Amino acid sequence: MNPLTRSDHLFGPLFSDADTEDLWSTQRFIREFTQFESALAGALADVGVVSRDVADKAMTDIGTFSPDLAEIRKQVSVDGLPVPDFVRQLKAHVSAEALPAIHKGATSQDLIDTSVSLILRDVSERLTEGLVAVCLALEALDRQWGETPMMGRTRMQAALPITVHDRLVTWLMPLQSHLAQLPKLRPRVEILQFGGPVGNRAGLGNNGNAVAAALARRLNLAEEARAWHVTRSNLGDYANWLSSVTASLGKMGQDLALMAQQGVNEVRFSGGGTSSAMPHKLNPVLAETLVSLARFNATQMSLIHGAMIHEQERSGIAWTTEWMTLPAMVTASTIALKHASSVLQNIESLGSRPD
Amino acid sequence: MNPLTRSDHLFGPLFSDADTEDLWSTQRFIREFTQFESALAGALADVGVVSRDVADKAMTDIGTFSPDLAEIRKQVSVDGLPVPDFVRQLKAHVSAEALPAIHKGATSQDLIDTSVSLILRDVSERLTEGLVAVCLALEALDRQWGETPMMGRTRMQAALPITVHDRLVTWLMPLQSHLAQLPKLRPRVEILQFGGPVGNRAGLGNNGNAVAAALARRLNLAEEARAWHVTRSNLGDYANWLSSVTASLGKMGQDLALMAQQGVNEVRFSGGGTSSAMPHKLNPVLAETLVSLARFNATQMSLIHGAMIHEQERSGIAWTTEWMTLPAMVTASTIALKHASSVLQNIESLGSRPD
Amino acid sequence: MNPLTRSDHLFGPLFSDADTEDLWSTQRFIREFTQFESALAGALADVGVVSRDVADKAMTDIGTFSPDLAEIRKQVSVDGLPVPDFVRQLKAHVSAEALPAIHKGATSQDLIDTSVSLILRDVSERLTEGLVAVCLALEALDRQWGETPMMGRTRMQAALPITVHDRLVTWLMPLQSHLAQLPKLRPRVEILQFGGPVGNRAGLGNNGNAVAAALARRLNLAEEARAWHVTRSNLGDYANWLSSVTASLGKMGQDLALMAQQGVNEVRFSGGGTSSAMPHKLNPVLAETLVSLARFNATQMSLIHGAMIHEQERSGIAWTTEWMTLPAMVTASTIALKHASSVLQNIESLGSRPD
Amino acid sequence: MNPLTRSDHLFGPLFSDADTEDLWSTQRFIREFTQFESALAGALADVGVVSRDVADKAMTDIGTFSPDLAEIRKQVSVDGLPVPDFVRQLKAHVSAEALPAIHKGATSQDLIDTSVSLILRDVSERLTEGLVAVCLALEALDRQWGETPMMGRTRMQAALPITVHDRLVTWLMPLQSHLAQLPKLRPRVEILQFGGPVGNRAGLGNNGNAVAAALARRLNLAEEARAWHVTRSNLGDYANWLSSVTASLGKMGQDLALMAQQGVNEVRFSGGGTSSAMPHKLNPVLAETLVSLARFNATQMSLIHGAMIHEQERSGIAWTTEWMTLPAMVTASTIALKHASSVLQNIESLGSRPD
Repeated sequence: MNPLTRSDHLFGPLFSDADTEDLWSTQRFIREFTQFESALAGALADVGVVSRDVADKAMTDIGTFSPDLAEIRKQVSVDGLPVPDFVRQLKAHVSAEALPAIHKGATSQDLIDTSVSLILRDVSERLTEGLVAVCLALEALDRQWGETPMMGRTRMQAALPITVHDRLVTWLMPLQSHLAQLPKLRPRVEILQFGGPVGNRAGLGNNGNAVAAALARRLNLAEEARAWHVTRSNLGDYANWLSSVTASLGKMGQDLALMAQQGVNEVRFSGGGTSSAMPHKLNPVLAETLVSLARFNATQMSLIHGAMIHEQERSGIAWTTEWMTLPAMVTASTIALKHASSVLQNIESLGSRPD
Repeated sequence: MNPLTRSDHLFGPLFSDADTEDLWSTQRFIREFTQFESALAGALADVGVVSRDVADKAMTDIGTFSPDLAEIRKQVSVDGLPVPDFVRQLKAHVSAEALPAIHKGATSQDLIDTSVSLILRDVSERLTEGLVAVCLALEALDRQWGETPMMGRTRMQAALPITVHDRLVTWLMPLQSHLAQLPKLRPRVEILQFGGPVGNRAGLGNNGNAVAAALARRLNLAEEARAWHVTRSNLGDYANWLSSVTASLGKMGQDLALMAQQGVNEVRFSGGGTSSAMPHKLNPVLAETLVSLARFNATQMSLIHGAMIHEQERSGIAWTTEWMTLPAMVTASTIALKHASSVLQNIESLGSRPD
Repeated sequence: MNPLTRSDHLFGPLFSDADTEDLWSTQRFIREFTQFESALAGALADVGVVSRDVADKAMTDIGTFSPDLAEIRKQVSVDGLPVPDFVRQLKAHVSAEALPAIHKGATSQDLIDTSVSLILRDVSERLTEGLVAVCLALEALDRQWGETPMMGRTRMQAALPITVHDRLVTWLMPLQSHLAQLPKLRPRVEILQFGGPVGNRAGLGNNGNAVAAALARRLNLAEEARAWHVTRSNLGDYANWLSSVTASLGKMGQDLALMAQQGVNEVRFSGGGTSSAMPHKLNPVLAETLVSLARFNATQMSLIHGAMIHEQERSGIAWTTEWMTLPAMVTASTIALKHASSVLQNIESLGSRPD
Repeated sequence: MNPLTRSDHLFGPLFSDADTEDLWSTQRFIREFTQFESALAGALADVGVVSRDVADKAMTDIGTFSPDLAEIRKQVSVDGLPVPDFVRQLKAHVSAEALPAIHKGATSQDLIDTSVSLILRDVSERLTEGLVAVCLALEALDRQWGETPMMGRTRMQAALPITVHDRLVTWLMPLQSHLAQLPKLRPRVEILQFGGPVGNRAGLGNNGNAVAAALARRLNLAEEARAWHVTRSNLGDYANWLSSVTASLGKMGQDLALMAQQGVNEVRFSGGGTSSAMPHKLNPVLAETLVSLARFNATQMSLIHGAMIHEQERSGIAWTTEWMTLPAMVTASTIALKHASSVLQNIESLGSRPD
């Protein structure tokens, strides 16, 4: 779906950036799958399910594994997901003595969900940086323009005079609140997924929970008493947080587009979009894009909440829907923060000025 | 919009219940508006903006105020909200010496948002009760049927045997998690709204924050350093929580409808829907309704997140959209919990049984 | 869900009107259910399934039937829908000789869906009137103000001068297009539902299609070769049309709110919302409400399309979801047209004017 | 947003196919932009706005134009869209005497929207092929298995026996209806966009409509009396049609997943997804994916309808939102048809069978 990717030269830069795409790339998932299998081998030995030698051999062999991606790609439409062929190839690659430590007690969803957890850790780091940058930019603008008067407007009508500070604080406060919420949220999504075929870790007999604990330790992830194969509300909370971030940026973008209107003149930008027909115009395009990205994420919330209704022990329908949604929401959020920083850096003046 | 209200005899009982409608009724809002104005008069005296005598007179007069609802109703389409006429009537009702303590430093949004905060307090109490009841019912079923075998199913296919306990725990765990999250969330929505016309409490000069603090104390609400007229993410978080609750119940409902299938036979109900044409059928209608309610709330998430993009100091568009959404989501959540309890109470057996 | 109904005095008038609620009332559905059963009795005789005497007796008895609504209400939560108890009561009411002509070959969904078809006929009439009124108002404004200059604005920036006519035509054209589309759409929703328990009219043997044809004739509805129990795209098309109407009105409302800004001054209203704190303000509240209603309908599109995925022969989940959505969308559409007419009538001048 | 593109090896094949991505590629848009400018030059001469010589020179020069994509890409974030830099480069490329025929009377939106119209022509061809293929497959299955008995199921409960034909017809009928609707819809989206900066064709004086007509003729597109810069309901109708197609396929997918359940056994597949942990399983993954794709499109309807609210003469916010939505919906639709064909081809038997 071309327009939303960096490979698209014509629209892509509005919606995507290379760093974020790398987070969700084939290479990244393969690295996480491999890391999972390696850590699992180690964890199995930690608990004594396999010998340390078997685990070491497995980890060594996994270290030299480079899957045939074209083959995986071919199987995805058949299996509905890439793990079965990845595991088949991995089992064919490792030496016979390593086999007892490969994928033992695990299922496809364990690998994919854990990979998502590990990716979201990086996402949260990146979003924190982006949020901090926007907050700093807002604080700098406040120092420079905070005392300048401007018109307070309600229901799109001039109401009473305020200062630029009054307006800026309505942009800053929610972002600071999002920054404060994130550390509470992260432990609920940076969490091991490990349940085996039907989520009860039964494939490892009584060792299920111990292996899960050892595996979580090795991956530096939190762990829950059970698999969360069908319990997706933590991911829903994360999506809710993402969409709150873009909504707050969208409010700022909407305000800036309104402030840039002739007759209002409460912001002046140094750069800005040109027009193919009207070279005199300076369109606040990135401010507008913040609104579009906010609405995009807002709408995907409906999909991510709908996808919480996982039936039975594992749902193909709901899980597949999640894949269509969460990476897109993350990307919309990171690019929105990037655009927000650009927009704020281009501000030359804020507040009412004689025109 | 008839089918969703208790006044509808034909569809209403599926979607609404009297208790929840009362929470959002005209009477309730009038009570909260009145309480707000009374507490504000007291708070103005607490801080010394008006004398205690003036405040006492105001509170006494407010106590005898009974607005002309038909007149308010007539003005709503003109003003876009009921507060201006409510305040006009109130000012006409109170004695002249009380006037300085009426609505001073406040704006319509202060009354309505604070009323919503106070209503949500009751909503949270009610939802807590409902969640506890469902959890207890699940625990009772677990004690009775937990060890019974049933088939674990993934991607709608038989996978490996599990026990009824394994399934029940996937219904119970998320509900317990929602119960644990709610107390952290409540202080962020049970919060005073007080900002005045453009949100900066400027109408009270230097006393703005002190009056806000006193008012919050009198209403037993939390308080923020500023008005949150355009900062709606706390309400968004609450909506997210509501929709997570209904999604978790929707998963249970979907599972039960699948378990009730002939050929699967993993649940037997004592009651259940009859058919106008097939008296032999026992339809799992309330289980199905749980899925419908979950999808309803999931979809409204898009609206509530879209409505976070409040422009300028106060947004008519976004705020109005919120009114269309939040009460509906609350109602869907309370009725879903009620239906969930009914469904669980009607379970006669769980787990595989010879057919 | 109080705020959206006329019984709510504080918010209701923004979102609902009495006429539209009556279309979806208990009384209306009972009337349609009764009409359906009566027409079915007649149709059974038309085809010779029952004798004319039996049919006449049935129609006479049905004519004196007045169901116990409280009892139906009680059964709705059990059955998931009101028809089983309605039919039970009806069968108890009619004389024994009439029984063979009661509900024969029909199922609950036949009654409810056909009632919706009949209600939508009135809805379409009403919406046509509303659209025509708005178009006439726009044409009148065009005659009065069309040649007045105003600024053309793109990406929220002044672009090049246009006339008021240029702007008005962007409001008028889509409404005229919606008016032109409706007659093509109506025959696809004003259509008999008749399929019996599993949709294949098998309960009437070889007479199924003939009875359907006779029944459609008596109800003055179109007829399809088969039941459309699980084929909901015609209703989806109707919802799409409704939401297109409100989107077009929302564009007009958004434009008017932007035109009413100080510094832009391209519209002056005679009435308009007052503020509880700022009596000098004239808020364009109904223009704003048009945007809110447009977003509401836009969001429900997701629900109505999701509800198209009816499983098997009849789906409780999807159908129930439809009930939560379609009447609400209709109501939002009729009230939006009403608000649009009010807004346009209040316009005192259009176009740029010296301030 | 990696998982939804063909460049993703792990998830991409479920959601995208190369042919559809090519329809929305950089190369395709550049080709259409170029074609537009060339046809515009010709149209200007057709009407006499420029001489035939100038037009011929322009068309020759345009024919040798190959834009610097990296440069366009750099400007997109500044301009908000790729056209201004494309036109700048084009003007720099052509000879001086050709300049009067380049981009005259046009604006960015004219190029992009017209390109979308031309792309949708191909999309409609492809979707027609896909729909016909699925219909043929269903008819073949009906011939083979139509008379086999199976259980009719309503509200997820066994109701009364039906035949496989009864079920197949509920899959086939809506697809045939979509096929019948498309030819009526296509002329409303395969339509020239030509309005100039503020949509009124004023840049060409009295020649605006004549140039538009000539341009439409050269591009073999329909033409409207005015630009539809802010009138997006035709695109909304197309999106509605797309989502109706995927909803119909989603119903089929949902049914197949239910039929494939052990204990129901009403379909047997020859292929099907394997599991990384349970090699004995044959998961109906593509049937499930049909449901996911249907829900995806259903949700995007909310975004596309929200994006109909274009403010003023041209909206950056709404238009940008459209770009995020429409290509994704098209892709979901084409891949859904592809998966549907695969699923149906893998069916080995339909109907009840002794287990």
